[in-house]
Amino acid sequence: MDEHYYQSDEYIVIKAIGSPVQIIGLTRGDSTKPHHTENLDKNEVFVMQFTEKTSAIKVRGKAEIYTRHGVVTSGE
Amino acid sequence: MDEHYYQSDEYIVIKAIGSPVQIIGLTRGDSTKPHHTENLDKNEVFVMQFTEKTSAIKVRGKAEIYTRHGVVTSGE
Amino acid sequence: MDEHYYQSDEYIVIKAIGSPVQIIGLTRGDSTKPHHTENLDKNEVFVMQFTEKTSAIKVRGKAEIYTRHGVVTSGE
Amino acid sequence: MDEHYYQSDEYIVIKAIGSPVQIIGLTRGDSTKPHHTENLDKNEVFVMQFTEKTSAIKVRGKAEIYTRHGVVTSGE
Amino acid sequence: MDEHYYQSDEYIVIKAIGSPVQIIGLTRGDSTKPHHTENLDKNEVFVMQFTEKTSAIKVRGKAEIYTRHGVVTSGE
Amino acid sequence: MDEHYYQSDEYIVIKAIGSPVQIIGLTRGDSTKPHHTENLDKNEVFVMQFTEKTSAIKVRGKAEIYTRHGVVTSGE
Amino acid sequence: MDEHYYQSDEYIVIKAIGSPVQIIGLTRGDSTKPHHTENLDKNEVFVMQFTEKTSAIKVRGKAEIYTRHGVVTSGE
Amino acid sequence: MDEHYYQSDEYIVIKAIGSPVQIIGLTRGDSTKPHHTENLDKNEVFVMQFTEKTSAIKVRGKAEIYTRHGVVTSGE
Amino acid sequence: MDEHYYQSDEYIVIKAIGSPVQIIGLTRGDSTKPHHTENLDKNEVFVMQFTEKTSAIKVRGKAEIYTRHGVVTSGE
Amino acid sequence: MDEHYYQSDEYIVIKAIGSPVQIIGLTRGDSTKPHHTENLDKNEVFVMQFTEKTSAIKVRGKAEIYTRHGVVTSGE
Amino acid sequence: MDEHYYQSDEYIVIKAIGSPVQIIGLTRGDSTKPHHTENLDKNEVFVMQFTEKTSAIKVRGKAEIYTRHGVVTSGE
Amino acid sequence: MDEHYYQSDEYIVIKAIGSPVQIIGLTRGDSTKPHHTENLDKNEVFVMQFTEKTSAIKVRGKAEIYTRHGVVTSGE
Repeated sequence: MDEHYYQSDEYIVIKAIGSPVQIIGLTRGDSTKPHHTENLDKNEVFVMQFTEKTSAIKVRGKAEIYTRHGVVTSGE
Repeated sequence: MDEHYYQSDEYIVIKAIGSPVQIIGLTRGDSTKPHHTENLDKNEVFVMQFTEKTSAIKVRGKAEIYTRHGVVTSGE
Repeated sequence: MDEHYYQSDEYIVIKAIGSPVQIIGLTRGDSTKPHHTENLDKNEVFVMQFTEKTSAIKVRGKAEIYTRHGVVTSGE
Repeated sequence: MDEHYYQSDEYIVIKAIGSPVQIIGLTRGDSTKPHHTENLDKNEVFVMQFTEKTSAIKVRGKAEIYTRHGVVTSGE
Repeated sequence: MDEHYYQSDEYIVIKAIGSPVQIIGLTRGDSTKPHHTENLDKNEVFVMQFTEKTSAIKVRGKAEIYTRHGVVTSGE
Repeated sequence: MDEHYYQSDEYIVIKAIGSPVQIIGLTRGDSTKPHHTENLDKNEVFVMQFTEKTSAIKVRGKAEIYTRHGVVTSGE
Repeated sequence: MDEHYYQSDEYIVIKAIGSPVQIIGLTRGDSTKPHHTENLDKNEVFVMQFTEKTSAIKVRGKAEIYTRHGVVTSGE
Repeated sequence: MDEHYYQSDEYIVIKAIGSPVQIIGLTRGDSTKPHHTENLDKNEVFVMQFTEKTSAIKVRGKAEIYTRHGVVTSGE
Repeated sequence: MDEHYYQSDEYIVIKAIGSPVQIIGLTRGDSTKPHHTENLDKNEVFVMQFTEKTSAIKVRGKAEIYTRHGVVTSGE
Repeated sequence: MDEHYYQSDEYIVIKAIGSPVQIIGLTRGDSTKPHHTENLDKNEVFVMQFTEKTSAIKVRGKAEIYTRHGVVTSGE
Repeated sequence: MDEHYYQSDEYIVIKAIGSPVQIIGLTRGDSTKPHHTENLDKNEVFVMQFTEKTSAIKVRGKAEIYTRHGVVTSGE
Repeated sequence: MDEHYYQSDEYIVIKAIGSPVQIIGLTRGDSTKPHHTENLDKNEVFVMQFTEKTSAIKVRGKAEIYTRHGVVTSGE
């Protein structure tokens, strides 16, 4: 493992308004590729952090995404 | 154990409005998979931190989730 | 003991409105399991921190829980 | 003694409104058990910190408890 | 790997208003060149951090970009 | 002496409204016991810090106690 | 590479209002010279950080530049 | 001397309204005892810090004491 | 190179209102002398940091200079 | 010299309203005794820091003392 | 060179209102003497930092000086 | 030279309203004595820091002194 460790207490909150909602975590490292897909059913809520593994998140489907820059809605 | 230790004093608060409510902790490490499921009965409250083990949380069932980005409700 | 030590000055306050109120501390480590149950009688107040041992808290019974995200009530 | 030392300048203030008021300090370590009980008579005030020894405090009897999350009253 | 590690908990949020939206990550190092292109379909949301790899981001296509300096729209 | 040293610039202020007022310092260490009693006459003011020695303070008699959580009065 | 590493989580946002817009990065080191030119077409948005390589940025053409000191427009 | 050094930039201000005013510094160490008495005449002002030596201050006589918790008057 | 490295995330923004505008960087070291002159044409914008090399900046010609102390205009 | 060095960027400002005004610096160390007396004539201003040497300041004579706790006047 | 390095991201901004304006940098070290004089013509703007070399600045001639304590005008 | 180095980015601003104005720097060390006198003519402005050398400043003559505690005028 790398000597340096990504550490942050920041998190975002995602609420599925429709179904399915896909939350795709993309890798932090030399390449940026999906490493995990979380599927949410309608009205499920997901609270997640950026980690040493994850530096980007894609959200597909109808959802509300609560962030430090406000609430953003995905999906139609 | 890893030389680096995740440390944060942040926490979220989850109140079960219906029953059952499932709170699923997902792992921080190389893979993102469930490692713990906490079941709440109606009106129980759960206060939890992100830890070295847990970097994501899924909430199923009717609940209020109190976070730094506001209060989000899960469930129908 | 682990070389790393969880340290935070954050605390939450729990007031029992009914009786009994159970406050269950869950472990921070590899598994998340109850390690302590504190029973409160009506109108008793409990002030507690997250510790190296405790990273989650479940509250059962009628109580007011004072946190950094506001006051949450448990119990019916 | 442990190489790590709990350190915080936070404190809470407890005023006994009735008598007796019991302030019970519980241990931070592997087990959570009472290690000290302070008895207050009516109108006495107690100012206390969390310490390496104490990570939880139970208050019994009629009192006002001044904390970072506001003032909470114990006792009937 | 370099002894120094870029670390920040800052992130931006990009919502595709039209389709396609291209998010192009450019390298931090000696040269500034594209290393990753993420394609978003309409209404998908992308949350991303600057990393050791990425120090600039270009957005093409109709999108809302939520940042610490406000919300900026791309595309016509 | 312990290798770790308690350090804080926080202090509280106590004004004796009646006489006598007793300010009792309790020890931080393994046991919590009185180690010093300061007696104030009416209208004397005492400004004090938590120290490596003192982690709790009991006030008896009529006094105003100025703290970070507001002003609390002791005594009838 | 230098033992010291420039690190900041600050960034600016540039939106091309006209076309072409040129964003020229200038070197931090002993001399200040262009090392990269990014061309934006109308309505493209560029989010960029200062880096170990870049300590100055010139913007040519009609653009809005979002910064910690407000929004500045370039171009006629 | 101890390897640890108390350090704070906090100070309080004491103005003698009557005469005499006594400002008594008490020791930080294992015992809490007076180590210095400063006498103020009417309308003299004393600005003082907590130090490695002093962790408590008693004020006798008519004075205004300016602190981070507000202005407290001593003396009748 | 010096063992110490100047590091700041502060920057200023300069917009040329007239033409030409000269931005002259002066050296931080033992002597204060120009080491770089950047010429801006009308409506070009320059965003720049203080660096290990540059500790002073002179602006000649009609420009708006956005700083932490407000917006200052140069030129007649 | 002690291995630890007192360091603070705090300062107070003293304006002589009458004449003479005496500003007496008292020592930080094991004993608290005057080590310097500065005499101000009417309308002179003195700006001073606490230092490794000085941890208390007495002001005699008619003066305005500007501090972090407000403006205090000395002298009749 | 000294092992310690002065470092600050603070700066001041000086606008020449008349001509000539002289900005004289004085040395930080054992003696305080001019080491650099910058001459500004009317309407030129100078942005400058305190450095390891410069700890005081004198401004002669009609100018506006933008600082953390407000805007001060020099000259008649 | 001492192993510890005084470092602060704080500064004060002095504007001469009359002439002459004397700014006298006094030494930080074991004794407090003048080490530098700066003379200002009417309407000159002096911006200065506390340094390893200077821990007190006396101002004589008619001047405005801009500080973190407000603006103080010296001289009649």
